[in-house]
Amino acid sequence: MIGERRAIEIIRGRLSKMKDAPIPFGDDVSAFSISKNELVVLKTDMLVRETDVPPGMSCYQAARKAIVMNVSDFAAKGVKPTAALVALGLPRELTIKEVEDIGAGLNDGAREYGAYVLGGDTGEARDLIISVSLSGTAKKDRVMLRSGAKPGDLVAVTGTFGKTVAGLELLCGGFKSPLSIREVLVDSVLTPHARLKEGLALSQTGAVTAAIDSSDGLAWSLHEIASASNVGFLLDELPIAKEVQKFAEINAVDPVGLTLYGGEEYELVLTLKPTHVEQAERAVEKVGGKLSVIGRVAAQKKAVLKTGDIRRVIEPRGYEHFKEIQNVGHDFSN
Amino acid sequence: MIGERRAIEIIRGRLSKMKDAPIPFGDDVSAFSISKNELVVLKTDMLVRETDVPPGMSCYQAARKAIVMNVSDFAAKGVKPTAALVALGLPRELTIKEVEDIGAGLNDGAREYGAYVLGGDTGEARDLIISVSLSGTAKKDRVMLRSGAKPGDLVAVTGTFGKTVAGLELLCGGFKSPLSIREVLVDSVLTPHARLKEGLALSQTGAVTAAIDSSDGLAWSLHEIASASNVGFLLDELPIAKEVQKFAEINAVDPVGLTLYGGEEYELVLTLKPTHVEQAERAVEKVGGKLSVIGRVAAQKKAVLKTGDIRRVIEPRGYEHFKEIQNVGHDFSN
Repeated sequence: MIGERRAIEIIRGRLSKMKDAPIPFGDDVSAFSISKNELVVLKTDMLVRETDVPPGMSCYQAARKAIVMNVSDFAAKGVKPTAALVALGLPRELTIKEVEDIGAGLNDGAREYGAYVLGGDTGEARDLIISVSLSGTAKKDRVMLRSGAKPGDLVAVTGTFGKTVAGLELLCGGFKSPLSIREVLVDSVLTPHARLKEGLALSQTGAVTAAIDSSDGLAWSLHEIASASNVGFLLDELPIAKEVQKFAEINAVDPVGLTLYGGEEYELVLTLKPTHVEQAERAVEKVGGKLSVIGRVAAQKKAVLKTGDIRRVIEPRGYEHFKEIQNVGHDFSN
Repeated sequence: MIGERRAIEIIRGRLSKMKDAPIPFGDDVSAFSISKNELVVLKTDMLVRETDVPPGMSCYQAARKAIVMNVSDFAAKGVKPTAALVALGLPRELTIKEVEDIGAGLNDGAREYGAYVLGGDTGEARDLIISVSLSGTAKKDRVMLRSGAKPGDLVAVTGTFGKTVAGLELLCGGFKSPLSIREVLVDSVLTPHARLKEGLALSQTGAVTAAIDSSDGLAWSLHEIASASNVGFLLDELPIAKEVQKFAEINAVDPVGLTLYGGEEYELVLTLKPTHVEQAERAVEKVGGKLSVIGRVAAQKKAVLKTGDIRRVIEPRGYEHFKEIQNVGHDFSN
């Protein structure tokens, strides 16, 4: 089998490039210009039941998630989504109740973020496929790209990490947890939330030099910014969720690994001008969120976590075990 | 199994309606307003190999067709496509050559109509899935809807019908044809073309009162306009392709059925103000096409073909045999 990243490279190699494309190849969203400073912003991402829907996730939750995972990319770029279209592949065995739940999940996912599902297409397919395309407009100079991080910038995140991996392990079986934390962990998988308010607020501050969502895990997100901005990272705080710390203790697994090498979580990972950090923090607090600084951008092109006297290299990878049963999709944005 | 049209109804029933949506529920494309008279126009349609790709169609052709079938809806509305995004589900057994061909087919399909593939997403899937979303901008008052046909308007089409059904029958086996017409018929399936130039030219004339593409066949297209415009049709010409006439003779099948009840063909079906017919014809000729008047809009809500003394009711259905092996997707545009 050809790897997905290789498949994307091959396809990209066959695509003609739009002249003066306002958002470069390989960022989280695509766009075209409609005036000097105004863009139509676009994103598409597909959910396939066999590879993307873990045990215990309902049709409603899968449909809602298919919308949320697209909204998260808009959030990371600071773009408000306006309309979603949905192409559905429906297997024969689907019940009326399941189709109703898909409709409700799509609608709730979109309305939660102010967007509408305007239309789409259905056809028969072997497996349930929910392919969402999201669109909206944005000011070009407000869009937060992956590529502007500079040495000395601070690294910040909008929340804690590791919950989805722990939640997935619980859903897939073989791990244990007290009820008190089980719900939080499992819920992070079944009902993810996009940091749209935070992203929109941050894009107005001018504080952000690079941004991405953490849908492929914290480590991978850092490496994507590193690669697009030609920098490295030195983290001195690990944004580990307290439930993940507990899960790791109980199950005797490495909490650092759970936190760095996650996936299917939708926090924002940002780099900030050192002069504008407080402004960014205030903007996020104003919309009910919290920004945590976890390190800084380094000139040396590697990513390192240094806690106390322990230095640990942050590898460019996502969640390995889950990859065997679950497929992390990849962009070939132009 | 729930029928596709029923599935769409169910999903539609769960969707909140955008206030002042500029294009009504159920038309070929969706849109949102960006200024008083300017729209962002959107369409998504998914191709699934098992149900939508006939024997003999290559990966290149399938990818190209996935773009063209979306462009055809833009053509029917008179909207220029600017950007395509593609969500791909790739089965494990796909070769590098096949992935290259998919990239090339996507690009060629888009460039042929002036659009660019700006990005997308890939993931693993059991079957090859090519989900395309197309976008562009348009003047609201130039978009040709399904809903404006009035009794007395003339019905016109941009080409001849029946070739794709004959071509599909040839590809699926069991029918015969001389080589002289085989290529035309099979090519209509493998390398479809959207009538974009014609649609764009027509939208500028102000002559068109309703429009749709014929992707579900001529009969179905007429019934869609009839239902959206609350009218009926009386056809006095059958736009049968000469190759289809020959195919029907050789194989002793009904040429009228082949012409009316087709599918996967991308002509435009239009209704025209009787005062503006010549203007519309000239506009289409100017871009190298040909418009043929085949009947008129009737007040009585049924569709009838009257050739000589024979009256035949045009049923609201597409290609039946092909439906068993091939799935015609349906819109739930909002």
